[in-house]
Amino acid sequence: MFNVQPIRWSAGRLTILDQTLLPGVSQYIELDTLEVVHEAILKLRVRGAPAIGCCAAFGLVAGLRRQGHRDVEAFRVAFDSAAAYLSSSRPTAVNLSWAMERMRVVLEGSYDICDVEVLLGRLAVEAERIFEEDQALSQAIGQHGAKLIGDGDGVLTHCNAGGLATSGYGTALALMFAAHDAGRQFRVYADETRPLLQGARLTTWELQQANIPVTLICDNTAAQVMREGKIQSVIVGADRIAANGDAANKIGTYSVAVLARAHGIPVYVAAPYSTFDLDAPDGDAIPLELRGAHEVTHGFGSSTAPEGVEVYSPAFDVTPAEYITGIVTESGILYPPYTEAIAETVGSRGGVC
Amino acid sequence: MFNVQPIRWSAGRLTILDQTLLPGVSQYIELDTLEVVHEAILKLRVRGAPAIGCCAAFGLVAGLRRQGHRDVEAFRVAFDSAAAYLSSSRPTAVNLSWAMERMRVVLEGSYDICDVEVLLGRLAVEAERIFEEDQALSQAIGQHGAKLIGDGDGVLTHCNAGGLATSGYGTALALMFAAHDAGRQFRVYADETRPLLQGARLTTWELQQANIPVTLICDNTAAQVMREGKIQSVIVGADRIAANGDAANKIGTYSVAVLARAHGIPVYVAAPYSTFDLDAPDGDAIPLELRGAHEVTHGFGSSTAPEGVEVYSPAFDVTPAEYITGIVTESGILYPPYTEAIAETVGSRGGVC
Repeated sequence: MFNVQPIRWSAGRLTILDQTLLPGVSQYIELDTLEVVHEAILKLRVRGAPAIGCCAAFGLVAGLRRQGHRDVEAFRVAFDSAAAYLSSSRPTAVNLSWAMERMRVVLEGSYDICDVEVLLGRLAVEAERIFEEDQALSQAIGQHGAKLIGDGDGVLTHCNAGGLATSGYGTALALMFAAHDAGRQFRVYADETRPLLQGARLTTWELQQANIPVTLICDNTAAQVMREGKIQSVIVGADRIAANGDAANKIGTYSVAVLARAHGIPVYVAAPYSTFDLDAPDGDAIPLELRGAHEVTHGFGSSTAPEGVEVYSPAFDVTPAEYITGIVTESGILYPPYTEAIAETVGSRGGVC
Repeated sequence: MFNVQPIRWSAGRLTILDQTLLPGVSQYIELDTLEVVHEAILKLRVRGAPAIGCCAAFGLVAGLRRQGHRDVEAFRVAFDSAAAYLSSSRPTAVNLSWAMERMRVVLEGSYDICDVEVLLGRLAVEAERIFEEDQALSQAIGQHGAKLIGDGDGVLTHCNAGGLATSGYGTALALMFAAHDAGRQFRVYADETRPLLQGARLTTWELQQANIPVTLICDNTAAQVMREGKIQSVIVGADRIAANGDAANKIGTYSVAVLARAHGIPVYVAAPYSTFDLDAPDGDAIPLELRGAHEVTHGFGSSTAPEGVEVYSPAFDVTPAEYITGIVTESGILYPPYTEAIAETVGSRGGVC
């Protein structure tokens, strides 16, 4: 079974694989203060909705411990501030605030504890639970969704929803790993995913290591490979799914979904329950992060556009539910009407598993 | 009036603005042998269907002169070989072989000439005619199409069909220059156009210099700006238009056309008669150039994908005529049914104007 370790937690220390250096360099860095955790998420050293949820949970513990609190009241105040600070690092993926909320519930449930070390211990246990649970979620998503990939298929994916984007096994790519383990032969077409090239750098790297055939294409080539009959399904991850099934994911996902519709190709979104936001009635309620011009114009060490050019670079878009054929979760594949299916499947899980 | 000089011909010497260095460096290089002309077209130092037609015509003269022929029969043999060689530099844009054919007609019409210098002189005059005619074609295209851009519009374009892609004024961008000259206020959204970034590097550069507001977006963001209501029309160039109106253009144009259809946005293709290929009944007859993996994986000076990854990089795609609202030519705007409109307008012009 394919498994990478984007996040490591050992003896109270958090280290992550710096994804900005991949695929050329595999380097782990320690995140030992709230500021470096925040920076690592903001700069996409760790990225992918489930992964940043896990990282923020561990990072919250590591960062608070580093602050050296003795007074429990001061610690509780610092917790609120730290959780809000980490939640603010990236706005779109709901797993981040979801993880902070789980940690807060543990802290509030420990109202009778007056020892900061004991509180930190309980928070660490909860962070480990979030992480281990995510591993189980990924496996279950893969098992439920593997049947969507047939022998001889071409599967298009956008960005990276693989092991690197989670605790190690992926969401969209979990289906591919599971289908591959089941012996099916297929080829993945990976959109390079400008501006930060998560498809070119990360998805191809993961699939290569798993010995799954992969072809890298520029984002603007997706329509052409669909027209050539090379694609039988589109499988992507999500950063936040609204109560009606509208799904925010990496910019360009909406484009792929519209193109798939035009070519009669099904579109599947793979995500664990932690990616659903039942407080968002639809996609309009999902905040979409805007990134700076520099990532587009200077992304590779040299300038690729004239000085001072205006750039519009949303990091995400929303694919309306009507474009989504099915949503693959740890509980099975949800089909329209999504409002009912999501309420029934995800609503029943509540905030803490 | 905005005008760049991508191609200069003076005293029998051909120099071009090396477009691979733009926008950072504006450097002219001389093309004095057939081999360097071929290399310049192949490497996109000069690119854009009308521009490579003009460049090949001048380059044919410069390269043949450099060979120093005295014997007229040997010269005629060398001509055939040189024209075929330059035609082979890039397969999709029909303007290249169209220009070579015009030169051949001049040579054959000069069957009574026995002096190589006189033949070279006649060929040079024809190359100058092709170039000057292209200037007039661009102006006429701009005048006919300017009315398609309204006050307050957002116009999306893909790749570069500007002055740099022609003799100096453009095809798709000619409409924008003309609309701007007519006082209309609008904003252009330029797809960066992977892998070679002609949109980011060239289109934004041209529009900036013409003081036309421009916003650079990644290719995968086109659907999102359409969804946000920012785009009122798509205007692109073409490399070859078949007799039925199917239009080959830079990879990603088909994608933009499908997305525009889904958002109810009209799509206009701007091209002179020299870009039509009446021998191609439809898009299936248009050869689509495949480019190497390196342009995708090493396009920015550093590697952006794992070693040995398979890449699929067609340089062009075909937009079926049914997605094209109108084709803006020097004779006016053609509308469906295109087979009749093209036969009537372009068929009557024949090979030589």
